[in-house]
Amino acid sequence: MKEIQSYIAEHKDRFLNELINLLKIPSVSADTAYKNDVLKTADAIKTSLENAGCDLVEICKTDGYPIVYGEKIIDKNLPTVLVYGHYDVQPADPIELWDSPPYEPVIKKTEKHPEGAIFARGACDDKGQMYMHVKALEFMTSTNQLPCNVKFMIEGEEEVGSVNLSTFVKNNQDKLKNDVILISDTGMIANNIPSITTGLRGLSYVEVEVTGPNRDLHSGLYGGAVANPINVLTKMIASLHDNNNHITIPGFYDHVEELSKEERAEMAKAPFNLNNYKKALNIDAVYGEEGYTTNERNSIRPTLDVNGIWGGYTGEGAKTVIASKAYAKISMRLVPNQDWKNITQLFKTHFESIAPKGVTVKVTPHHGGQGYVTPIDNIGYKAASKAYEETFGKTPIPQRSGGSIPIVALFEQELKSKTILMGFGLDSDAIHSPNEHFGIFNYLKGIETIPYFYKYFTELSK
Amino acid sequence: MKEIQSYIAEHKDRFLNELINLLKIPSVSADTAYKNDVLKTADAIKTSLENAGCDLVEICKTDGYPIVYGEKIIDKNLPTVLVYGHYDVQPADPIELWDSPPYEPVIKKTEKHPEGAIFARGACDDKGQMYMHVKALEFMTSTNQLPCNVKFMIEGEEEVGSVNLSTFVKNNQDKLKNDVILISDTGMIANNIPSITTGLRGLSYVEVEVTGPNRDLHSGLYGGAVANPINVLTKMIASLHDNNNHITIPGFYDHVEELSKEERAEMAKAPFNLNNYKKALNIDAVYGEEGYTTNERNSIRPTLDVNGIWGGYTGEGAKTVIASKAYAKISMRLVPNQDWKNITQLFKTHFESIAPKGVTVKVTPHHGGQGYVTPIDNIGYKAASKAYEETFGKTPIPQRSGGSIPIVALFEQELKSKTILMGFGLDSDAIHSPNEHFGIFNYLKGIETIPYFYKYFTELSK
Repeated sequence: MKEIQSYIAEHKDRFLNELINLLKIPSVSADTAYKNDVLKTADAIKTSLENAGCDLVEICKTDGYPIVYGEKIIDKNLPTVLVYGHYDVQPADPIELWDSPPYEPVIKKTEKHPEGAIFARGACDDKGQMYMHVKALEFMTSTNQLPCNVKFMIEGEEEVGSVNLSTFVKNNQDKLKNDVILISDTGMIANNIPSITTGLRGLSYVEVEVTGPNRDLHSGLYGGAVANPINVLTKMIASLHDNNNHITIPGFYDHVEELSKEERAEMAKAPFNLNNYKKALNIDAVYGEEGYTTNERNSIRPTLDVNGIWGGYTGEGAKTVIASKAYAKISMRLVPNQDWKNITQLFKTHFESIAPKGVTVKVTPHHGGQGYVTPIDNIGYKAASKAYEETFGKTPIPQRSGGSIPIVALFEQELKSKTILMGFGLDSDAIHSPNEHFGIFNYLKGIETIPYFYKYFTELSK
Repeated sequence: MKEIQSYIAEHKDRFLNELINLLKIPSVSADTAYKNDVLKTADAIKTSLENAGCDLVEICKTDGYPIVYGEKIIDKNLPTVLVYGHYDVQPADPIELWDSPPYEPVIKKTEKHPEGAIFARGACDDKGQMYMHVKALEFMTSTNQLPCNVKFMIEGEEEVGSVNLSTFVKNNQDKLKNDVILISDTGMIANNIPSITTGLRGLSYVEVEVTGPNRDLHSGLYGGAVANPINVLTKMIASLHDNNNHITIPGFYDHVEELSKEERAEMAKAPFNLNNYKKALNIDAVYGEEGYTTNERNSIRPTLDVNGIWGGYTGEGAKTVIASKAYAKISMRLVPNQDWKNITQLFKTHFESIAPKGVTVKVTPHHGGQGYVTPIDNIGYKAASKAYEETFGKTPIPQRSGGSIPIVALFEQELKSKTILMGFGLDSDAIHSPNEHFGIFNYLKGIETIPYFYKYFTELSK
């Protein structure tokens, strides 16, 4: 790939500033308060794609936030790469735990990022990783090295379940026709240990509401005599795991893919240091399903976590009250072959069935998606592997991720093409957390690596 | 008691308006945002006591909110009644569940209050009930019918544990010297079934904090591999009750007073309709400790309730996060002979001991107080009983309350006198809840009944 490194060196500051400007817009899709910012971000993406050399860029309306579509078709007979990414971000709270304001990006050096990292909500997930593709396209078009056709589909609802993207994909199969889908929304093991994500977990996200008495009650006059919705909720949630931390929902494990000894042995070869892991999180012990290692628990095993809980008096001081209602947000990470709609139904049926007399329970599914596994013998994976070898000088390790990109399974179903997950973030980048950041090394390395993927994918497609 | 009824009839509107003005001040002691309002309320109480005929009224500074002290000494040889009440109120939230603003009192008729009730935070607990005593004094002084000496001690920290009142009482034993303490901060069975509270539960109120990883984590990348503080907190709280809803804290029941069959049979005579109780709360079943009736569960048995719980993402939509911390406010109602400091220590020790590896637990005691039982054979109780007979035409029923007035036990210890609990509220008055109210009938009946207590107590003291 001619002069890619010199091109990046020359334009490095601009590449950083363009990303920083994008990160300044708080495009939080979960909170309607940010509606205008999310829409503003879509416009910014459109402009950036036009500047990068797309021939056609559209802001496609949906029932929710728009999808930015862009394309550069150079020859119908050449293969087409569809790039998917998202311009929305997670909420920034708890805001007080950020060392710098989440939407005022700053560059700081860290132990893992000696060349500096950009700190801002969305820096890694996914504005930074998505924008690598825009800049890679700019390089290929401005140096006449784009070897195939490219399409971009950048959505604004990934953090809230891509509700409208699925409809868009179903209704635009011709427009989105492609030979491979390329996504950078995952991570790699370390900056000197490149890896390609070959598996994603599915997701079922629900909200539960427990209602007891029709009003808040004085805990002295009624304490001990009526079901306290908060106490009941804690009992119900606690019962969802047994003492070995297996999930107790009947049928939950029915379709879980059990990996062979060999596969698990293969996985165990990935570099991992439990002490560093505990040290990084400042915990004295890990915790999880009996019989599985940490890396298995967070990738090949399904899990159930409470993401939020609230009820009663949470203000300063003390209030002796029995709340009328208690709430929790609960998500389950699923593995290949677990159907998220089926699991959501199993959860709903079970959770409602364990409600004691004296309370009523409401379960509201939020969203979900299927798990996914990429075979490593297809040309998409091979092209990505060769690209990393070019820029990292090492063969990347195939790795299962615990995260979910619910839309990936749908892509395969609707568009009949495989997805390649070229992620350049690190687990320590604190995505979804305060002080999210993305290494400058990772950002630029991504821009450098992506054009090689286009090159090798086009060659291997011949 | 000469012309008490005509005096009330003549001044009824003024009595209501004075209370309404008091209720307009949001004197929330739990929330420092209301500091000035709490102080303003103290001033208003001072003025009202002066107008009611006290010879001396002082605002006594404490390390927290001041205590308003007033007295009218007519003859050192006559008995002295010490009236205790509080001018602070509970927080009004959840504010959205109020039918009218909590600090804009309105009078509305209800099924139980056909003559109307005043709706406002503090209407019953305790501004309305405390102010009955001020107006009763006004009647006795302005008609020269005060038969003995009277002292008032009205505090501003009852809803947050009367932290500074105890010091004040210990340091002012001479000033507070009395023959009986009179409090209206409890309820009666019904407007046509007068009752006197003879027992109060003690209280231990704690806050717990569970800390897992040092930052919020992505639930996909870490879910299932680290202890989730919210899941852990639900397991820990759930384990505090066994399947019979007995509390599992070792030693918790060691000193619990067990009532005899006879005493329980006596209690069971108090009018109570379980169906109406369930209907009023809109619940399909009651819930509580195996082997005890509803009225026993909320009066003679100790309980443990979560008053508030929070952690993780509680905003709109979905956030796939594992929180670094989870919190709960937990209160235990105690019965006579349970020492609240001992119980608080037992809770702390036990709760910390059940924390699994991978999290750290912090238990912070908020406040507490001892339970209390009034013997029904002392002249204070007899005088109260005769007073109710005069104004209700019925002998009041002695009744244990599930509520707590932590300071009462301390009064007996420090001031060596008994407390008589002449409460005129109803359980349905929604104290500590949205739409708290106090019946106009109850307010005026209280003003009418109190002077008779003074009369009979003075006579029986001879």
